[in-house]
This record gives sequence, structure tokens and C-alpha cells, in this order.
Amino acid sequence: MSERRVTPRSEDYSRWYTDVVLKAELADYSPVKGCMVIRPYGYTLWENIQAALDRRFKDTGHVNAYFPLLIPLSFIQREAQHVEGFAPELAIVTHGGGEKLEEPLVVRPTSETIIGHMYSQWVRSYRDLPVLINQWANVVRWEMRTRLFLRTTEFLWQEGHTAHATQAEAEEETRRMLDVYTDFAVNEAAIPVIKGKKSEREKFAGAVASYTIEAMMGNGWALQSATSHFLGQNFARAFDIKFLNRSNELDYAWTTSWGLSTRMVGAIIMAHGDDQGLIVPPRLAPIQAVIVPIWRKDAERTIVLEHAGQLAGVLKESGIRVKLDDRDELSAGFKFNDWEMRGVPLRIEIGPRDVEQNAVVLARRDITGKEGKTFGVPMGGVVEAVREMLSTIQATMLRRATEFRVANTRTVQTYAEFKEVLDSQGGFLRAYWAGSNEDEDRIKDETKATIRCFPSDESESRGTCFYTAQPAGQVAIFARVF
Amino acid sequence: MSERRVTPRSEDYSRWYTDVVLKAELADYSPVKGCMVIRPYGYTLWENIQAALDRRFKDTGHVNAYFPLLIPLSFIQREAQHVEGFAPELAIVTHGGGEKLEEPLVVRPTSETIIGHMYSQWVRSYRDLPVLINQWANVVRWEMRTRLFLRTTEFLWQEGHTAHATQAEAEEETRRMLDVYTDFAVNEAAIPVIKGKKSEREKFAGAVASYTIEAMMGNGWALQSATSHFLGQNFARAFDIKFLNRSNELDYAWTTSWGLSTRMVGAIIMAHGDDQGLIVPPRLAPIQAVIVPIWRKDAERTIVLEHAGQLAGVLKESGIRVKLDDRDELSAGFKFNDWEMRGVPLRIEIGPRDVEQNAVVLARRDITGKEGKTFGVPMGGVVEAVREMLSTIQATMLRRATEFRVANTRTVQTYAEFKEVLDSQGGFLRAYWAGSNEDEDRIKDETKATIRCFPSDESESRGTCFYTAQPAGQVAIFARVF
Repeated sequence: MSERRVTPRSEDYSRWYTDVVLKAELADYSPVKGCMVIRPYGYTLWENIQAALDRRFKDTGHVNAYFPLLIPLSFIQREAQHVEGFAPELAIVTHGGGEKLEEPLVVRPTSETIIGHMYSQWVRSYRDLPVLINQWANVVRWEMRTRLFLRTTEFLWQEGHTAHATQAEAEEETRRMLDVYTDFAVNEAAIPVIKGKKSEREKFAGAVASYTIEAMMGNGWALQSATSHFLGQNFARAFDIKFLNRSNELDYAWTTSWGLSTRMVGAIIMAHGDDQGLIVPPRLAPIQAVIVPIWRKDAERTIVLEHAGQLAGVLKESGIRVKLDDRDELSAGFKFNDWEMRGVPLRIEIGPRDVEQNAVVLARRDITGKEGKTFGVPMGGVVEAVREMLSTIQATMLRRATEFRVANTRTVQTYAEFKEVLDSQGGFLRAYWAGSNEDEDRIKDETKATIRCFPSDESESRGTCFYTAQPAGQVAIFARVF
Repeated sequence: MSERRVTPRSEDYSRWYTDVVLKAELADYSPVKGCMVIRPYGYTLWENIQAALDRRFKDTGHVNAYFPLLIPLSFIQREAQHVEGFAPELAIVTHGGGEKLEEPLVVRPTSETIIGHMYSQWVRSYRDLPVLINQWANVVRWEMRTRLFLRTTEFLWQEGHTAHATQAEAEEETRRMLDVYTDFAVNEAAIPVIKGKKSEREKFAGAVASYTIEAMMGNGWALQSATSHFLGQNFARAFDIKFLNRSNELDYAWTTSWGLSTRMVGAIIMAHGDDQGLIVPPRLAPIQAVIVPIWRKDAERTIVLEHAGQLAGVLKESGIRVKLDDRDELSAGFKFNDWEMRGVPLRIEIGPRDVEQNAVVLARRDITGKEGKTFGVPMGGVVEAVREMLSTIQATMLRRATEFRVANTRTVQTYAEFKEVLDSQGGFLRAYWAGSNEDEDRIKDETKATIRCFPSDESESRGTCFYTAQPAGQVAIFARVF
């Protein structure tokens, strides 16, 4: 058995992150530069993320479809900002079936172009609108510096693409999906994201306006966790998505796009993990509870395993994702550490004395040691006890992450203060902002911090810009980022 | 509204197929040669196929994971037969991030190679075995002649890849997954497939033995619907998947792979469709029941729609996938034809008289016209009635397809008879076989029919080869194929 300990966060945050991903077997490096393998434990987490999102997409009237992986290079070039943003990251297929292609094909970095083309075939009249389609897919963006889950050349995501008859409807859709992402992050991933608008510098290539949810990681840095874009009529013009409106006039459609990727796995790791490793929020956990049987003598082994097996059956029947760790060759202590490192939210211990008393011990992952243990939980009420404990853990994780974010978000009034706080304490910096794009660039060059978003719930705030000292109509959140 | 009629099957089977795919909005052509767009109705059918399969994979102990899309060209070249089979179909990425790559990458046509490489990293001891992993993914194979769903340059599929400590275990896995596919085809898709072994000529490039399920389409041709391969130690040797066995000796693992693709959608269309269009088996249908409200006057409209809406709610609550077609601008007659063409298994009609009698009319898709209608189904028992009707339709579809296959499978004793029956009647030809690979090639050249499989349930049959007149130890099913 390999060493299961991870580098402490305080020692080296970046090493800690990589240790957790590799040792918890969430993912592995592949022989293809910048591409990763998502291992079963990490993929099951992704499947749970998918299910929670897909349900929300369908509840808001969306359907899934699938568009080609390969896109003609000329398509990417049709929207001026789009090609500028994506050209440097393209993977290009030049040969197929043993021959050189007449026109090179691009492995999709995102699908606005090919989907826009198809919508132009399908939409004729306002009666065909809105089109509310989502796609679960892989995309490829050539990245120079990659990090498992956070930035990989290939990643998995969903990309929603909608077309509407009016600007108002499209803007409403953009906000609706941002709310869906926020609801998912808060209530499933236990991550208290800040939702808001992106700056001009940070918006999507080809969008009129981009919105984001930004999460605070354990080192105080920000992680952009999902985005929702209002594309105006930019892609409709580039791909000729025209329709007859109610007044029987030809008009361009208004489109949106929105996406969340396997990056979210990285967000979960860094929002919740501790020096023991991963902590997975119960609602998304591949394994919600692990049963560790404890015995010394062979006679004890038989009876303990019998009870543990029955318990696993009862919990499984109740819809709890449970695993019985009955490996013979490993000690209970090793198993405790192993499952803690893998972030299983609840451990159920069962030994000879527990069997005698017809009870079990529950041990919380979010509170380690004796403090997190509940002894003598009677078998009769074990399903309810486990359910309640899981929901307590979920709530505690959200509360803890919220408190951490609040404690590490600081309002600054001047650029001097900004730099001082950023260097000494890090975290999110909240400040009034009336600067230009060039001001934002300068701050990034000098401090490595960027505007993460203009928070939606402070859109009415007025004050004085910390950088230009001009009157400011908005609050910005600055942070360093992954 | 566009014309919803499809070309009759008798007039032009191939046109009929394409008409159904396009007009039922299952898929559409894309601007990328050989690649299709799977539209929401077709994709929902695929999602239902996925769910039914995924459940079976997990019940048999498999987990999902994800491996890179892009594979080093040198990997494909490592297994001699594998490269011979796939080299002509490869799509090749030569440039990434604006630069020429040092080694070209292949867009995966299948993943034995990259997965084999990863298994060699993960497997050290017999304790690490078996590895039972499945992947849901897109693959690309450059095809010259493409057909929507049946043969496209990019398609969606699942590919299972397992590694085992012994030959017996790997062979057992190969058979187990063939049984899983058979169970899925029969009990979900209502397609009575024949399972069996592939001939040497038809087996997977790199396999020791390939197994298949073969379905009969409405024109008597065969469609290979899923395959399961025993790979021996071929890929383990090529990718160095070695482990310490129980005797503490280094040994190569035994591997398998098995896959089912979006081709299955084509199988469903052609196994069940009729001159009105598609018929989708209820268990996989995106819409199991469509409610068509009928009215003439405005006063009727209100009350009929109210009842129809309530009915939709009740059915949805009971887990039935129901759609209420309340479009104002279309006649009830148009809607009947439209949903028949799209293959919704059950139509529920509700008009003013039905409302008065607190009842509805059920109309079966598999039996058109008055014969397939049940009048005066009381609202009180409508959920049960719909459920029963759906399960009757499912059973009828399987019975009908089975009868059709039996009626169109003919045993032949000589090659003269073979050719005569094939030309005059088509269908499946059952014959004893002791021929060589070259004999099989000759028959294919002369008749366009190939050995679909050696049926598993006739593996004990002994007779005289229809082609060589030699003693034969097996029965072969010949057919023309899609």
C-alpha cells in the first residue's frame, strides 16, 4: 500500500492540491501533454454533479442534444472577437482517412459557431423560438500550463446555447442560468459563490456581457466556477440566425451561452479540503458513508462482518451511497486514514462491542477526532441518524466555507491599502471601481490580482474608486486566481 | 408546417429511413462531412438507452471513468492487427496552440491503446484485478460512405475495458457483457437479436475472439448492434499490463472490450418503423404518451384543455413520460399524423364528449386505425390503463419483430439454394459452415452477404457445409448488412 498522507496545505498549497487529486484517485496524468484521465472516484463525483445540474436544466425547460466535435476552421473565424480569443488555443485536424483535408477542422474549443449554424437552419419564425438546448461534451483548448481539473487541454463540460426572439428574453435567460449555477454551487457543492458581471477584460470572446460565479479557495484565491454569457445578436449575425417576428419582419435572434466544467471538481477540492485530504459534500459524494468493521480475533471477524453487511444493505436500500470496506489485509486504522484522505463525509465503525449493544459509532469527516464521533447510535434508528448527520455535515460545510469567505474578504479604499492587504493577507478585495481597461491591466501586471466580478447584489452601490479616485457606480471583487 | 409524410418503405427503404430520421427530428446533417447533429428528440432516446445500459453495467460491478480524446499516433501502431484495422480511418491532429506537434495525435477511434497504457500504471498485483471500467464517449472514424446513426464519422458510444488475472475470468466477462447487451436489446429495445461469435474476417482488429448481437431490420438486412471482444493478452503485451499473480510470478493481464453506439437508434428505427414513420418501444420512448385535445368551439377549448392539463399532471406524477400537445394553430388530425410519424407509442384523445363522460380514448401506435383504439377509458383508472397499454405495446413490438425474424430466416443446404433464396427473398440465411476465410470473401464478392455470426445457442450443431460440402462443426447466419 502506498503512502496515503498528503502534503500539508500550509507547507505547499499547490503540492497539497496535486497530492489530493492523485492519492484520492480522482484523476491521473496521461501520456498526452495537458490531458488527464478522470479515474472512477473522480468521475462518479462528476456524474453526481451532472445529475444535479441536468435536473435543474430540465426543470427550467431545456433539452439536451449533441453537435459535432469537429468544426470547420472558417466557422471559428466568422465572429471577429471569437477568433481572436480562441485562435491561439486551437487543436487542428489536417488529415482524415489518410488524406489531407481540403479545409482544416478544429476540435471544438466551444460550440457557439457550429450550433449557431444549425440554429440558422432550424429557426424560421418566432414560433420556433426560444430554442433551449444544452450539450454535455468534451472540448479541447491548447493550454501551456495545465493543472489537473483546473486547466487541462481537454475537459468535460456542459454548454447551453439558447436563441430568443427578444433582447429581454435572452438577458433573462442569461440571469436565470447564472441563478441555476449559484443554486447548484450553494446547495449541492456547499460553495458560497459570489455571482456577478465580468469586466470587459475578462468577458467571453464574442459576448456582449459575461456573468460568473466566483468561489474562494482554501488559500484565499478565486476560482471562476461557471459562466453565463449574453451574446446579443453577435453570433446570430455571424451565422445568419434570422426569423420572421410577430410583425412579420425579418430579425436576428438574440442568443446566450453558459457552461460549467470538470473544473468544478477542483473547486470542491479546494473549497473544502484540509490537511488530511479531501472533504466531499454529502449531496455530491460518490460514497456518502463508509462502514469500517473492526475486529481482532477470527471469531469476532465473522459476527462483525455479518452485522456490517446487514447494515450496508439497509443503508443502500434507503438510497444512501454506502460502501463496506471489508478488506482483510488492512488494519482499521489504515482504513480510517484512507477514507479520510478520500473525503468520505461519514464513517461508520462497527466492532464486537457495538454488535453486542446493537449499535454503531458515527464519525464525521468535517470534525476529526473524538469530537466528531457519536457513540452508541442504535441500529434501529440508524438510517435516520445517518441521513440527519449527512445533512448536518452538508450544512456545516457551507457555513464554514461562508465564514471563511467573509473573514477573508476585505474592503479597501486606496491602491496602497489594496497592495498591502493583498500581500499580507490575500483573499478577496472589495473596492469601488471606475477604472479603465488599461487600469485593470496595470493592476494585474503589478499585483497579479484581477477583477473577478462586479457582484450582482451590490449593483446599486455608489462610492469612490480606490484606484482613480473618481466617482464609481460599482463595486468590484479583486483576487488572485487559479 | 412542413410535409410530415415519409416515403413508403416498399417504394425506397433507404429513402424511408432518411425521411424518418430527418422528419421525426431525430438528427440532422451537419456542415462537417460525415458528422451528424443529434437533435433533442433523438438525443433523449439516446439518453434513455444510456440509462438502461448504465444501470446494467453498474449492476454487474462496473464503474465509469474518462480517458483522453487524443492518443499519440505511436500508441495505435503498437498492436499490429489494431493499426492495420484502424489506420485508414484515423483523423489526425497535427497542430496545437499555433504550432506543429512533435508527434501527431489521433482523435480516438476506440480506446484500447490509451486505456491499456493507463492500466499498466495502475495494475501491480492480482489484488488490483479485475479492473472493470466503462467510458461514455465520442469517437471518430473517417468513413467514406456515411448514413445518419448507422455509420457516421463521429459517433457516441460506450466502451467497456476490463483487465483480469486469468483467461477464464476474461472470457466470462466477454460473455457476461454480450448477455447484458442481449438483455437490453430484447427487454428495452424490443429487438430479438441473435447473439453469437464473429468469423475471423469480421472480428475486431486486435481481438482473439469477437462476439456480437445481430438484429434483423425491416428489409431483412442485418445490423450489428453491439460487440464484445476477448482480447487475450494482445493488448497487455503491447502496453505492458503486467502483474504479480498469486504464485508471485509476473504475468500479463487478460483484457476485454465491449461497445454499443448511437447506431442502436438506427436499429430501433428499422426494426420497428412502418410506412407512417417511427415506432419507439415504450421503455425507451422520449414521449410515452401524447395527449391531443380536440375541440371545435372556443367554449369547448377551455374545458377540454383544462381536463387535458389535469390528465397530463396526473400521468407525469405517476412517472409516465407524457406530453400535452396544446398547439392552437394545428388541427387534431395534423397532430395525430405528426405524433404517429414520430413514433410516440400511445396517443390519448380527449374531446368535449370525453370530458362529459369523464373518460378518454387511447390509441395505439403499433395498431393504427380504429382497431387500435380503446374508447371510454374512465379517468379514475387512467394511470393503470396507460401503464398496461404501454406494457402491452412493448410486448407486441417484441413479438412482432420476433415473428418477422423467424419468418425471414431460412435454412439452406447448397450454395445454389443460398443464392436463389437471397435474391428472391433476402432475410437471414442459416447454413452449416466449414469454409475458409477465402471462401467467405468469395461469397461476399458474389452475393454481398457476409457471416453475421455463429449463433451461441447452436454451438453444438453438426452438419454438412453448404459451400464446401465438408463436415461442419457450426451453424452460420449470413445476411446483407447496413
